[in-house]
Amino acid sequence: MSTTTHAIAAPAPGAPLAPTTIERRDLRPEDVLIDIAYAGICHSDLHQAKEDWGQAIFPMVPGHEIAGVVAAVGSAVTKYQVGDRVGVGCMVDSCGECEYCLAGTEQFCVNGNVQTYNSVGLDGENTYGGYSNQIVVKDAFVCRIPEGIDLDVAAPLLCAGITTYSPLHHWGAGPGKKVAVIGLGGLGHMAVKIAAAMGAEVTVLSQSLKKQEDGLKLGASEYYATSDESTFDVLRGKFDIILNTVSAKLPVDAYLGLLRVGGAMVNVGAPGEPLAYNAFSLIGGNKVLAGSMIGGIAETQEMLDFCAKHGIGAEIETISADKVNEAYERVENSDVRYRFVIDASTIGA
Amino acid sequence: MSTTTHAIAAPAPGAPLAPTTIERRDLRPEDVLIDIAYAGICHSDLHQAKEDWGQAIFPMVPGHEIAGVVAAVGSAVTKYQVGDRVGVGCMVDSCGECEYCLAGTEQFCVNGNVQTYNSVGLDGENTYGGYSNQIVVKDAFVCRIPEGIDLDVAAPLLCAGITTYSPLHHWGAGPGKKVAVIGLGGLGHMAVKIAAAMGAEVTVLSQSLKKQEDGLKLGASEYYATSDESTFDVLRGKFDIILNTVSAKLPVDAYLGLLRVGGAMVNVGAPGEPLAYNAFSLIGGNKVLAGSMIGGIAETQEMLDFCAKHGIGAEIETISADKVNEAYERVENSDVRYRFVIDASTIGA
Repeated sequence: MSTTTHAIAAPAPGAPLAPTTIERRDLRPEDVLIDIAYAGICHSDLHQAKEDWGQAIFPMVPGHEIAGVVAAVGSAVTKYQVGDRVGVGCMVDSCGECEYCLAGTEQFCVNGNVQTYNSVGLDGENTYGGYSNQIVVKDAFVCRIPEGIDLDVAAPLLCAGITTYSPLHHWGAGPGKKVAVIGLGGLGHMAVKIAAAMGAEVTVLSQSLKKQEDGLKLGASEYYATSDESTFDVLRGKFDIILNTVSAKLPVDAYLGLLRVGGAMVNVGAPGEPLAYNAFSLIGGNKVLAGSMIGGIAETQEMLDFCAKHGIGAEIETISADKVNEAYERVENSDVRYRFVIDASTIGA
Repeated sequence: MSTTTHAIAAPAPGAPLAPTTIERRDLRPEDVLIDIAYAGICHSDLHQAKEDWGQAIFPMVPGHEIAGVVAAVGSAVTKYQVGDRVGVGCMVDSCGECEYCLAGTEQFCVNGNVQTYNSVGLDGENTYGGYSNQIVVKDAFVCRIPEGIDLDVAAPLLCAGITTYSPLHHWGAGPGKKVAVIGLGGLGHMAVKIAAAMGAEVTVLSQSLKKQEDGLKLGASEYYATSDESTFDVLRGKFDIILNTVSAKLPVDAYLGLLRVGGAMVNVGAPGEPLAYNAFSLIGGNKVLAGSMIGGIAETQEMLDFCAKHGIGAEIETISADKVNEAYERVENSDVRYRFVIDASTIGA
C-alpha cells in the first residue's frame, strides 16, 4: 500500500538527475503527509549523488532541506493539523530509546538515525528525500515553520540553519563575543545572519573580497581576505569563536592564532584529507578545536523559532525542476548566492 | 643590594648542572623570602637546560616546583608571616593590569608573565628557579601549602598538580564522568590521583602494562596498553575526557574515537612536530580537541587546598643535590616513579 509521487532522482552514481516517480508509504498512526513546497540543494546532496562519501543507494532522490504544508495526518498525530507549515531536515527517524535520543540529540543515536534520503528506514525501506511533491515523515521528526518566514527561504534552515546555529549556540555566540565565519557560502551566509542576530560581532574570513558587500549586508561588521597574509597578523588573538564552514584544507595553526585565550574553532565543513596542527597552538592559550554535526530535532525547532523572531531566512535562488543539473554544476563552482531552492510545484508538472 | 644563596645551575646549554651561587634581591615591600625545602624536577627543566625550546638564559637555575617556608616578608606583605609553609610554581610576576591578569589567569598575561627561571623580570633582572636555598617572590605569586601535605610531596603540585587539575576541573571531571589519562609519568600520575579524587572513573592508557599495579593503586579503576590494538575497539566511545600527558606523536583520530559524543581530548603534553587529524573525527560526535597550560595563581591555590583535603601529594623520589645530573638522565629514560624532588638542604652543604 502506498502513494505514487513525482520526484527528481539520480539513477546511478554521478548520473544527471531526471524526473521519476517514487512510492510514499500509507500513513501510519504517527505519520504526517507533507505537500512539499520547496527543497534546498545542499552541497552534501552532490557528494552523496556522486558517491563521494562511500557507497550510496540508487535511484537517489536527494533533498534534506524541506519546507511544505501538512496534507494529512495519521490517527495518533496531535501536534500537527492539515494546513500547518512544516519542515523536515536531515533525519526522519531514530531508535528513540538510546541516551542520545532521550536527550533530544537524535543525530547521535547509537543505533544510527535514519537519514532523510540515501538511508534505510527502521521498516527496511529505502528513504527518498525532498526533491519530490510529497513526503511521509513520523511526526517527531517534523518541525513547525513559524509564521513570519516564507517557506522558500525557510527550507535551507533545515540543514544550513541548524548546522550553524547549533555550534554558535553551544560555544556561546552572543553580545560581547567576536565570531569569525570562514567561508561565505550556503552554510557561511547562514552563520553570519544567525551570529549577528545572537548579538555577536561578526567577521567574515573569505578567500577574496569578492562577496564583501554581501557579507556586510548579511550582518558582518568586518570582512577580510585570507589570501592576504596580513589578515593573520591584523586579527591575531581576536575571536572567541571561529566557525569553519568550508571543506578546504586550511592552515589550522594560523587560524588558531586568531583565537583569544579559551577560544574555539569549530568545524562544520571538513576536507576528506587529514589536517595538521601543532598541539602547542592549543596549549598556548587553552584553545579548542571542535566539530559539530547538524542538531537534534528540539534544537532545530528552537532555531526555526529564533530565525522567525529575528526575521532570518536563507538568501536563495529559486529554480524549477528542469534546472537541477545546471544548479548542481553551479554549486560545484561556488556560483550561487547563497542557496538554490527547488520549487516543488515544478516537479512532475 | 642583594643576598647570596647557593644553587645548582646549568652553565651552558646541555652542560651538566653544577653548584654555584646566585644573588637574590633584597626584599621589596611586597616580597616574600622563602627558605626552599624541596624543588621538583620537571621534564621541562631538561628541555630548557638543553635549549630544546629555543634560546635560553645561562647560567640557568631550573626549578618551578618549589616548596618551602617563609623566612622574611616585605613591609607591605599581610598575607604571609615568617614560618608559613608556601609554594611557588611556574610564574613569579605579570603585568597585573591586562584582562587575563585581572581575571586571575596570569599565565595568559598579554604582556607576558615572568617565568620562575629562564626569564627576565619586570625589573630587567634574570630570574633563577628553585634548585637553590632561597628565593624571593612577590607575594601575589606565592601560594599557601595547607597543613596535611608534606612539603616534599607538595613541591610537584606547583607544576604537575596544577597542569592536570586545571583541565580536569575545566572540562568537568567528577562523579559519573569517565576520564582517561594517557601516560603514567610525572603529569599522568597526578592526573590519576586528582581525577579519582574528583569522583571520576579513571582509566590509564599507557604504552604497556608495566605500571599497571601502580596505576590502580593511584586511583585508576582500569588500565590498558595502547600497544595492544584491541584497546581502541574495547574502549570505543567510552570517555568524557581524555587527558593527554605525553609528548609523543599520537594517532589523534584513534584517540578521538574513544570519546563519547561531546567528549574532549585535552593536551597538556605535546610533541614538537605537527599532529594529524581528520575533521570528521570531531564533527561525527561534536567532539573537542583542546589544550591547557598550567593554571592561574588563584586556581593553583584552589588545587593545593583540594589536594590537602583529599590527602594528595606526588609520588616522589627524593635526591640530594649531587645526584641531579643522574636524575636528569633517568628522567630522559622515563626511569622515575614519579617525580624527583631535590632536598634543598643539600644544596651548597
